[in-house]
Amino acid sequence: MKVRVTVMLKDGVLDPQGKAIGHALQTLGFDGVHDVRVGKVIELDLHGAGEEETHKKAEDMARNLLANLVIEDYSIEVVS
Amino acid sequence: MKVRVTVMLKDGVLDPQGKAIGHALQTLGFDGVHDVRVGKVIELDLHGAGEEETHKKAEDMARNLLANLVIEDYSIEVVS
Repeated sequence: MKVRVTVMLKDGVLDPQGKAIGHALQTLGFDGVHDVRVGKVIELDLHGAGEEETHKKAEDMARNLLANLVIEDYSIEVVS
Repeated sequence: MKVRVTVMLKDGVLDPQGKAIGHALQTLGFDGVHDVRVGKVIELDLHGAGEEETHKKAEDMARNLLANLVIEDYSIEVVS
């Protein structure tokens, strides 16, 4: 099954990459850009597990490796 | 309005970051991991535009700055 783990910096944690993109967009003439946050998305193809088990496995992976829980939040979505 | 642009490497383009995560997961004892792909997610808060205009604006931004269309695909989702 395919599962998507999205990892974003927590609110309040400075996001220099997002700031840089915001500035670049303004320079390119896009106005009305208020805030930009950048995160990671990790798509995993896991074999031999049902939907519930896949979700649980992805959560374990997020907690152990994919996200730094001190500064990042994650969300999990089983795609197919 | 909030819009989320997800940028992933195209199928067939080598993804060393994904490979590294796959190996790390195996080392940690997670088995059944078949394929891992890593991408970026950019959350933009755009002011003064309706849903359709926000989508169009985000598409312009993706084409001009956020994605490298030679090796990357993007998808756009207006969140709220």
